[in-house]
Amino acid sequence: MISVVCVSGGLDSAVLTAIALAECAPDIPAALHVNYGQRTEARELKAYQDLCDHFQIKDRLVADLPFFSEIASSSLTDRTVAIPDGAQRDGTIPSTYVPFRNGVILSIAAAWGETLGAERLYIGAVGTDRTGYPDCRREFLEAMTVCINRGTKTDSVCEVCAPLVELTKAEIVRKGVKLGVPFELTWSCYRDETVVCGRCESCRLRLEAFAEAGVTDPTSSRPDCR
Amino acid sequence: MISVVCVSGGLDSAVLTAIALAECAPDIPAALHVNYGQRTEARELKAYQDLCDHFQIKDRLVADLPFFSEIASSSLTDRTVAIPDGAQRDGTIPSTYVPFRNGVILSIAAAWGETLGAERLYIGAVGTDRTGYPDCRREFLEAMTVCINRGTKTDSVCEVCAPLVELTKAEIVRKGVKLGVPFELTWSCYRDETVVCGRCESCRLRLEAFAEAGVTDPTSSRPDCR
Repeated sequence: MISVVCVSGGLDSAVLTAIALAECAPDIPAALHVNYGQRTEARELKAYQDLCDHFQIKDRLVADLPFFSEIASSSLTDRTVAIPDGAQRDGTIPSTYVPFRNGVILSIAAAWGETLGAERLYIGAVGTDRTGYPDCRREFLEAMTVCINRGTKTDSVCEVCAPLVELTKAEIVRKGVKLGVPFELTWSCYRDETVVCGRCESCRLRLEAFAEAGVTDPTSSRPDCR
Repeated sequence: MISVVCVSGGLDSAVLTAIALAECAPDIPAALHVNYGQRTEARELKAYQDLCDHFQIKDRLVADLPFFSEIASSSLTDRTVAIPDGAQRDGTIPSTYVPFRNGVILSIAAAWGETLGAERLYIGAVGTDRTGYPDCRREFLEAMTVCINRGTKTDSVCEVCAPLVELTKAEIVRKGVKLGVPFELTWSCYRDETVVCGRCESCRLRLEAFAEAGVTDPTSSRPDCR
């Protein structure tokens, strides 16, 4: 089955890619990476390429979206806003939120997918850890499937697949272990590109997930990371 | 009312902008232009800026999307494919189709609109002349409204508005005349950037529309244009 998988280069998208490979075999998914001006993009792009190499993915598309930095409303893209420590748990939207990012990513995946004849678009949205991100909700992803099918050629049906959306981060780690995901190739830190900071929202969620799953995270981290 | 209007620089988006200005007054819409690598982009960008100047629009965003040329499936973006003469009338999708273009454009408008607090996103989709473009259908645009509201912050509702979707091109010209739209600033030709070719799909539809509306098109054209 022809498919497109959206790969940021982080933990979730690595596990997602392994799932897509298993579900679409013997076809190999095409992999889309989006550069929306995030400050750790160089490291994320390397992780994306390393994961594609590992999974033997040949069809790759890196979509540069410089406009996200211009609308500058997220601490991920606006370097004048500090990346906050820790993860919010109260359902409010953190400063790391990039407006409608998954909507833009899925639209691009749909455009590319239409030219490839893809029947599935995989996205690593996780609804459980980040209730504050509206574009990670299942209801949104279901609406995108309707939208994409109404707005593209009618000779095929394309489904947005978000197999991680109801999983906890620890469950994602465990699934990754089962599927032999090379966690050492991934990058999750929002702040740094050489050793992970261990304190930003993304690092905290990742560290907790590995701890809860009882798995050692092979990514190099600062000595003071707990 | 805060709004975003999508402005290519063509006839339809000029009339659309005049409608948005009237409906959202005294607020002035923000204007989004998307560069998806179309061969006449330099001229379209000038038309967009000229229209923004004319309508006194200050909030402008030009989103460069180089990936569309990479997926290279349209004669608009792939310079190895010739722009065909004439307009198709049989409902099949012409080679000028850019996959899911309005989906991508509206997603970007939604992202920007979310940061601005926009309640409306205006798009100049025309369903009547181009039944072959799936992303111009009313059902698609209605689905986008659902999608955008599920995928963005819940404290406001944002509606996709496509006031041209059921109009013929001639009706759009007549509406533009009523609203005092400066047609001389617009650009519609798919092929050329100095004088319009008069033969491509977009030129044919425009010439026919002006003729049917009994209005003279002020855009400079080749002497052999009929």
